[in-house]
Amino acid sequence: MQKCFDEKYGSYLKIINERIKTYLPENETYPGLIHEAMNYSLMAGGKRLRPILCVSVFELFRDDPDCVMPVACALELIHTYSLVHDDLPCMDNDDYRRGLPTCHKKFGEAIAVLAGDALLTEAFGLASKYSGKDIVADIIMELSSACGSRGLIGGQVMDILSEEKQIDEESLLYIHEHKTGKLIQVSVKLGGICAKADETAIKEISEYGRYLGLAFQISDDILDVTGSTEKMGKKVGQDEKLHKSTYPSIYGLEKSQKKLKEAVDGAISHLEIFGERKLFLEQLAKFVAYRDK
Amino acid sequence: MQKCFDEKYGSYLKIINERIKTYLPENETYPGLIHEAMNYSLMAGGKRLRPILCVSVFELFRDDPDCVMPVACALELIHTYSLVHDDLPCMDNDDYRRGLPTCHKKFGEAIAVLAGDALLTEAFGLASKYSGKDIVADIIMELSSACGSRGLIGGQVMDILSEEKQIDEESLLYIHEHKTGKLIQVSVKLGGICAKADETAIKEISEYGRYLGLAFQISDDILDVTGSTEKMGKKVGQDEKLHKSTYPSIYGLEKSQKKLKEAVDGAISHLEIFGERKLFLEQLAKFVAYRDK
Repeated sequence: MQKCFDEKYGSYLKIINERIKTYLPENETYPGLIHEAMNYSLMAGGKRLRPILCVSVFELFRDDPDCVMPVACALELIHTYSLVHDDLPCMDNDDYRRGLPTCHKKFGEAIAVLAGDALLTEAFGLASKYSGKDIVADIIMELSSACGSRGLIGGQVMDILSEEKQIDEESLLYIHEHKTGKLIQVSVKLGGICAKADETAIKEISEYGRYLGLAFQISDDILDVTGSTEKMGKKVGQDEKLHKSTYPSIYGLEKSQKKLKEAVDGAISHLEIFGERKLFLEQLAKFVAYRDK
Repeated sequence: MQKCFDEKYGSYLKIINERIKTYLPENETYPGLIHEAMNYSLMAGGKRLRPILCVSVFELFRDDPDCVMPVACALELIHTYSLVHDDLPCMDNDDYRRGLPTCHKKFGEAIAVLAGDALLTEAFGLASKYSGKDIVADIIMELSSACGSRGLIGGQVMDILSEEKQIDEESLLYIHEHKTGKLIQVSVKLGGICAKADETAIKEISEYGRYLGLAFQISDDILDVTGSTEKMGKKVGQDEKLHKSTYPSIYGLEKSQKKLKEAVDGAISHLEIFGERKLFLEQLAKFVAYRDK
């Protein structure tokens, strides 16, 4: 079964990496430097979790996943833009990402700001290429709301304001649900929306996405304590060094692991209505929660 | 006639300032700081040229301008985001904008980066609210392409790479056509697209927009030599100080003024087919070219 999951994940990964490359201008496109920076950050590896979520949810309902690729890949462009800006000296000031120098280390700060801006801008253009023109407005609205000042960016803001401070459980939950959770949840939801799934199905799958986002972040916090720099491709132990509040710092490691399991179980419980088709998404939830990088 | 133009411009300005406020979350919306920063930059004055262009072009074809407001205001959100990021220390490092401290001076760099990101993100969401759902995909694609790495951002990149260098005429034209021109041109074009104008009309009006963008930028370059810091609300003489190539630095003042007149005449020539309805847009071209701030 594990082998079967790995194979399926691998084939998603392959097709997404192939397609995503075709959606961005090549390095040589004038002005070259910005395209080099965009492609550098976008093609630096990564699990492609958000596109894979979008496509595999779409496949719960329809068997022509190719048509959802522009939306799925737009999610990865947005994820990459958020990492590029998050790594900037005025934000987290990170030198490495996925084992490579961060965008501003390689191309300078100005180009990194602009590369992030351009990835975000291209993402909306890409998502608007979805073939079901009648729902493009819904897709764009969902994306904008998940990634805006009351979504992903809101989480970033609170994360920055919480640095060097002990924060309470409620604030930590807000940061996690927004900074990481919103984009993961909308990836899942857009799979359903693009497939024109019914209201109940979209509601259930969105709840799966919400729990999955939470599981992802708890797991990330735990990995910063238990993971290795080599496997992660970025420095571990940074949260403690920066006095960041995390699940382990608030609840301790053991209780965090319990909360992680609860989140995974919560996610899986919302797959019930999909019967046997749920298998890959169930395994995906476990993969997200118990990964080592 | 001048009085008539001023009155019409003033009434556009009033309605756009009223509407734009309703499209953004209030300062108090959690997390407050990001909304304060977004509103601060968005409501710091400004000519609202891009929304006014969009609405007044729309009115060439239709008499219900209210419905194009979300698209028109989205253009101002994008313009504001580009200024906020452009002012950052790693870019132009400007302390004042429209007579007020720039966003990063007031809220810090991290919040300024995020406020710009959020304005861009909200802009796409806002534009997708256009009531003609069947053309939302076109609207988003036009916006994304005008503002992406081969549009506005491409111009920014070349502008940064050209600092402290003498550049040739071709590079200067690229920077102007992209950094400022693309957004002005798409503002005009979207007025036509939203009104479902025919192909010929959209082609003509887009050419008007292209010449107008050029006129705007030549005029901006000239004002940096001849304008006053007080009226402009930002330091003049910066281009020369930063050894930036501009129209006056390449052509001298007199020839720049001649080129400005050519651009205005070019813009106006493409209004011919609109007969008497063209009056406001004709006056607007002159206003843009011969403003003193």
